[in-house]
Amino acid sequence: MDRMMMDAMGSTSMRGADARMDMDLMQACMDACAACEQACTVCATQMMDCAPACMNCADMCNTMLRAMLRMSGMTPAVMVSMLDACIAMCQLCMDECMRHADMSEVCRMCAQSCQACMDACMAMRESVLAQA
Amino acid sequence: MDRMMMDAMGSTSMRGADARMDMDLMQACMDACAACEQACTVCATQMMDCAPACMNCADMCNTMLRAMLRMSGMTPAVMVSMLDACIAMCQLCMDECMRHADMSEVCRMCAQSCQACMDACMAMRESVLAQA
Amino acid sequence: MDRMMMDAMGSTSMRGADARMDMDLMQACMDACAACEQACTVCATQMMDCAPACMNCADMCNTMLRAMLRMSGMTPAVMVSMLDACIAMCQLCMDECMRHADMSEVCRMCAQSCQACMDACMAMRESVLAQA
Amino acid sequence: MDRMMMDAMGSTSMRGADARMDMDLMQACMDACAACEQACTVCATQMMDCAPACMNCADMCNTMLRAMLRMSGMTPAVMVSMLDACIAMCQLCMDECMRHADMSEVCRMCAQSCQACMDACMAMRESVLAQA
Repeated sequence: MDRMMMDAMGSTSMRGADARMDMDLMQACMDACAACEQACTVCATQMMDCAPACMNCADMCNTMLRAMLRMSGMTPAVMVSMLDACIAMCQLCMDECMRHADMSEVCRMCAQSCQACMDACMAMRESVLAQA
Repeated sequence: MDRMMMDAMGSTSMRGADARMDMDLMQACMDACAACEQACTVCATQMMDCAPACMNCADMCNTMLRAMLRMSGMTPAVMVSMLDACIAMCQLCMDECMRHADMSEVCRMCAQSCQACMDACMAMRESVLAQA
Repeated sequence: MDRMMMDAMGSTSMRGADARMDMDLMQACMDACAACEQACTVCATQMMDCAPACMNCADMCNTMLRAMLRMSGMTPAVMVSMLDACIAMCQLCMDECMRHADMSEVCRMCAQSCQACMDACMAMRESVLAQA
Repeated sequence: MDRMMMDAMGSTSMRGADARMDMDLMQACMDACAACEQACTVCATQMMDCAPACMNCADMCNTMLRAMLRMSGMTPAVMVSMLDACIAMCQLCMDECMRHADMSEVCRMCAQSCQACMDACMAMRESVLAQA
């Protein structure tokens, strides 16, 4: 997301959170979700047996991304619950894609996007818990 | 969802699940998610302060609905994690809408849809855990 | 969608429209879009060669459904343009699914859902044009 | 989207298209759709009167983005129809946001994202027509 847009969002905070979000961490997490949604959407179109997991992962990452963009309709506890779901879905999709990463360059890159998204969500999760 | 479509889906099962899903329970859960997405989408358009929560809830319910429709790209553990996120989001949205349910008929109905979706997701959660 | 929710939406009208929408027609169109999104989501999971068209059709139907639910962020001209896109996408998805409707009951039902959604969108299109 | 992913998509072409897509143009259009979805999602959360148009625009841009990522489930004629809907929706959202661009920095940036998305979709539209 555009840095200027992030700055305009300004004093973004969740209902019930003691502090403002770490905006760099959140921007990294939003970028990782957006990239993962796109990689999974491409990967699903290959119609290999990872496809249903990729479709689920694309939808979950989009929902996660939008929740972070909105921020205000959220509490720390709900955010953690959604991050947990996104992490679990990315892990499953990565596992599915890795099973034929040697046959498909797209699967290999999709698995990398899932890994990056998991890592970013886990960092975000820790940050949210620290502020709650 | 159409009953004939459900029957055509036939031997729907998750990877790693010991048994086929209870199709009646899943159909009820899918219907509740679809209804909740719609109610939240209408409610968000009112621009009352529940709106961001309603938008998040609409997205989460759609992602949950699609994951159940696909079923194959899923494990019981990931399904439970997504159901937990959907339950948490519905609870938050219901709480937000109930704060002005006396001012808005739409909010009151949105809160009812959230409650029904939570209940259906909790029943589904128990069923998935019983089969895992 | 729930009839009570439709009534609560009440005086729904688009910016720049001369009259209120025909709520029965709109409800039928929203129901057809919701059913088509679900059928296409199931059908895409079969991984037959209609799958990418089904995924596109599911997304377009969801976007169309939500636009009708919101109504206020819309003009008659933009609504017609979105209905045209939804009709075109449903037609393509129906054609793809019909090519192997004899091999797959799910494809046959998906094609029926696409046909019903096209018909409902065309009726809605005429109604919108008549009111603009 | 990642350039490596674009290259991996390789010989992307639409059913019935005479030639491969101009991948630079498509990448620019996908990036513009993704940015517009995000800007609109943030803008809708402000609850100014552009919000319903912003929500519609976010959904349409996401649907457009995914259709380009999939590419295979598409014909040039359907792609043009979807681009037309996306252009019309972006135009409306931009107009709504410009009406209070002096009051809200987020609205001003959202309008810019809509303009950029319209421009990219129009360039893509010309390219698709030239190849059909």
